[in-house]
Formats: sequence, structure tokens, C-alpha cells
Amino acid sequence: MRIVVLAGGIGGARFLRGLKQAAPEADITVIGNTGDDIHLFGLKVCPDLDTVMYTLGGGINEEQGWGRTDESFRVKEELAAYGVGPGWFGLGDRDFATHIVRTQMLAAGYPLSAVTEALCTRWNPGVRLLPMSDDRVETHVAVETDGERKVIHFQEYWVKLRASVPAEAVVPVGAEQAKPAPGVLEAIAAADVVLFPPSNPVVSIGTILAVPGIREAIAEAGVPVVGLSPVVGGAPVRGMADKVLAAVGVESTAAAVAAHYGSGLLDGWLVDTVDEGAVAAVEAAGIRCRAVPLMMTDTDATAEMARRALELAAEVRS
Amino acid sequence: MRIVVLAGGIGGARFLRGLKQAAPEADITVIGNTGDDIHLFGLKVCPDLDTVMYTLGGGINEEQGWGRTDESFRVKEELAAYGVGPGWFGLGDRDFATHIVRTQMLAAGYPLSAVTEALCTRWNPGVRLLPMSDDRVETHVAVETDGERKVIHFQEYWVKLRASVPAEAVVPVGAEQAKPAPGVLEAIAAADVVLFPPSNPVVSIGTILAVPGIREAIAEAGVPVVGLSPVVGGAPVRGMADKVLAAVGVESTAAAVAAHYGSGLLDGWLVDTVDEGAVAAVEAAGIRCRAVPLMMTDTDATAEMARRALELAAEVRS
Repeated sequence: MRIVVLAGGIGGARFLRGLKQAAPEADITVIGNTGDDIHLFGLKVCPDLDTVMYTLGGGINEEQGWGRTDESFRVKEELAAYGVGPGWFGLGDRDFATHIVRTQMLAAGYPLSAVTEALCTRWNPGVRLLPMSDDRVETHVAVETDGERKVIHFQEYWVKLRASVPAEAVVPVGAEQAKPAPGVLEAIAAADVVLFPPSNPVVSIGTILAVPGIREAIAEAGVPVVGLSPVVGGAPVRGMADKVLAAVGVESTAAAVAAHYGSGLLDGWLVDTVDEGAVAAVEAAGIRCRAVPLMMTDTDATAEMARRALELAAEVRS
Repeated sequence: MRIVVLAGGIGGARFLRGLKQAAPEADITVIGNTGDDIHLFGLKVCPDLDTVMYTLGGGINEEQGWGRTDESFRVKEELAAYGVGPGWFGLGDRDFATHIVRTQMLAAGYPLSAVTEALCTRWNPGVRLLPMSDDRVETHVAVETDGERKVIHFQEYWVKLRASVPAEAVVPVGAEQAKPAPGVLEAIAAADVVLFPPSNPVVSIGTILAVPGIREAIAEAGVPVVGLSPVVGGAPVRGMADKVLAAVGVESTAAAVAAHYGSGLLDGWLVDTVDEGAVAAVEAAGIRCRAVPLMMTDTDATAEMARRALELAAEVRS
């Protein structure tokens, strides 16, 4: 079975770990969000790709869900001693090496997809990890603070401000001109099923879908497209998805997120058991829906979620 | 008193520490060798400038004489895990921060002299540290290994091969086209004395003198130029200066090094007491010479060396 998964960071990575357990024989291609990418200290940092790579490769800091295990912050401390920031972005020493290798390869002319493949030869994530695009896309957020309107990088909004001010708009700058990375459209066309993990629908999966050609390829693949709600009981399971959902005029409910993707794209939708009441509304909108436990408390629970998603895909197909 | 010092790495840095103690009121400008500079992991590394900056700023690893105190090597270990080298160059985590800041500033368009000044605002070395040039100069060494002749970067010769094969030629690539950094010629013209510490006469001081205009400015400054022999008893005090002296056809003796600089440049020369027999020959060559203890065993001993150099300069002047 060939499975294509659109993934953001922590949520996508943890879901993938469950999916690998649920479908050990499957051929999994991950299309990773690169809208979170940021240049820090002259280095190209790809938080979502790295979170997937580290999580599946056994190098992740399990508690925080991002960054390396057994991490130290000596380089960052020294940079701060030079007065060089930003201090709010937690780049560890081990993590720095990844960004140094990536930046060097990019400078040598390799596209991000080739760089990601090279990094994965060390981590062996057990999936094929593709960036959504080799072109630079950077998610910016329009905010109003102290009566002043400004546009900031997504990471500044998310990590520095902790989404503490309302997002007025979320713009994947560069997406319109971006092309899907080599292999992305081919993987979608060859897929037996496409899954949207409980990743952020706006700044993770939404950004991937904003790359011209990807949404269309998924809609036209003629295979089941099944998603899992990142919103449970009216609030995001983790992260601050409600803040960016508000920016695109979408309520923080499992049903509203399904409707945001739309029946033209989505064939099946899993909501949490606490949202059982939403099933009828989602089905009325033309999307097959089931209520199942959606808390990724451990890999077994997550594998069960993946199994239910694949079951729903089989149901859609038949 | 305005003192200009031409400095390489460890020897130059330690001498400067003694000089600061010997002449606490002096206005010291250091013209640092940048021929040892190397690009590693996409970062610009300036070993000699950093050794001077860390030594005078209290950040040096005292035992090894280069690199940061209390250093760790996690970034390097991770780079090795990615198969990215070279493993033979010991870049520590704290040191990495310096190179990251420098590389970022260079990429932003600042010349190396401005970058060095910015780095020094943190370290307060108590001297004005200038790179010899803002232009790229890279010392290469021609060697013959396994019957094959090749040209390698100085650091590969020095650090990787430990100068274990004869150097057939030492070439400061780019020196001919290089211009002295802003302030270099001005500092020489305004100096009351110019000192050559016991640094490597070929790959440290020789490289600085290879930048067109610097040798001439020193020769024409009309002030005492006094050097301290890095060779004691027929062998370099530290490092492998004999290997590169051989490449330029100079014997490893205190007298031969003085003759290599020449009386057109050098007014005074200090040799170690064990080389007292060389004094007459150096003086016969037109260079005033004294035999004094030249082992930089501690700062007091080094300060005494600096004092003797300044005394010899005063003697030359009168």
C-alpha cells in the first residue's frame, strides 16, 4: 500500500510513528511543510522536516516533541554573549550540526529535496521524506500590536509571541510561485490513500496545499483522502491552531475544519469521540465521518488512530 | 608610546599578553595574520585573529594555547555523524559561535576588519586588533607525498599532517592582490616602535609582510623595528617553524631568521641566552642583537622579554 501523508511538525511526526506501526509494510511518502523554515544565524532551519526526521529516526527530544534528545545550548549561549539573537528560538548544539550541513549543501547548489534525502541517509526515518517544494516559501503572519500593524515571520508569531495576539492574516509568501518538489506530484498520483494527520490545517497542511498543483493532484488522484481532526472538543489538541484558524475565518471545531478542507478534497474525516455530535454535520457536507479516540497519548494509541483512518479510507474506496 | 605588533597565533598572542604587562600605558595595534584562515562547514574561521582575541580577552584554553576554555565538541561530533568533515580540525561549540557571527557579518557585507572590531567589543583584548588585509589570502603548501606532488591548505599541512612531510614551497595565495586592511598602514606610520614577536617567520609574519605595502611601510617608518627569535638552540620553541623555514631555504637558527628578515627591515633582534654565540653574526649583518631569556614560561617571563625588546628599540633609536 502506498500512503502519502501531508505533515507539519510535532503532530504530523507523532502520527507518522503510529502509522508506521499500524502499516509496517506500507510505502509511505511524507510531503513536509517548509513554510515554517527560517534563516537563523545565516543557517537554513527547517523545523518541520527535522521534527519528522528526528522523530522517526529516534533522535527527537520526546518530552518537548521537537529538537534533539540529550541536547545542549552552548553555541546559542555564546551567540547571546556576542549579542546575536534571536534568543527566543531554541537551537541546540546537536541541532546546529543539521543546519550547518543543510546550509552547506544548499550553498553548494543542491536543492532542498536532495539535501533532505542526504540528511535522511543518517536518520533512516523509514519513510520517504520530501519537502513540499524546493522553492522558498515562508509563512508570514499579519498582527496588530500596540495599535501598530505589522507582518512577522511565522516563527516569530508562534515561538516568540506564543500566538498571544490575534493573527489577522496568514500568508505563505512565495507559495504562488513555488513548484512542488521532485517526486511530490508523482507520489500523489501513485498513492492508494492520502492522509492528513492532525497537523495544523492552516500553517502546516494549508501551506502545503497552497503550493500550486498539490491540492489539484490530491483532488484528482481518485483515491481516498482521509484526515484526522486536530481540534478536539472545540480546542486544538496541541499548539495554537485556533489562533490561525480564526485568521482564515474558521471556527475551532472538528466540523468547521473538515468544511474548511471541503468535500472536493476530503473524502473521510475522523473526529474525537467527544465530538461525536459533529459527525452528522460533516457527513451532511459530503464527507464520511467517524468518531474515534484521537489523543496521541502513546504510539499504540496513535497506531490505532492510523488504523481507523486506513479503515475509513477502505470504506470510502468500496 | 604607540607600538605596532605583527602577530601570528599562539606565540604572538602570548607575547602580546607579556607586552601589555610590560607596557600597560602603551597604545598597541596588532596586525594579525589571516593567511591561516580557512572555510570549514561553510564558516569563515580565522585561527590567528581568534587566538589573539581569546588570549587577550581571557577566553583562551590556556593549556593548548588555542580555542576556548571549557570547550565541548558536540556540533563537531554531530557533523561527523553526518559524515561531514574535516575531523582533523578541532572546532569547539563555543568557538563555532564566533565563526557563525563572523560569517553572518561577512555575508551581510562587512569587511573582516569591521567584523574583527565587532567581535572584539565582546572580548576587550586591550589592543587594537586589525587583520593584515580584508582581502582573502590563503597560505598553501606544496608537498610531495607518495611520489605525488600536491598543493594543500596550510591548515591541512599543519594540523592534519602535523608538518610530517617536507614543505617544498609556501605560497600566500592572493597576497599579491591583497591590500592592507584599513588602519594598517596608518598604524605603522604613526608607530614609535614595531615589534615582531617570536611568531613563525614564514607563515605568520612572512605572510603579513607579503601583503604589498606592509613591508615597505615598516621599512620606511623610520622607527625601531625589533624582533624576538622564535628559534632557540637551533629549534623552534613551539610549532614546526623549521619545516617551513626549510621550504624558503632558511636554516633553523636564530641568526638565519634575522638574516631572512634582513637589516633593511630589522633594526634589533633578541636571541635566547643559549644562542649568545649568534649575537656577533647578527650584528655583523647590521642588526643590533642581544641575548636574553626567550622562553615564555609565564606572563612575567614574557613581560620581561617584551621589556628587553622595548629597551633594544630605545637603544636603536638613540
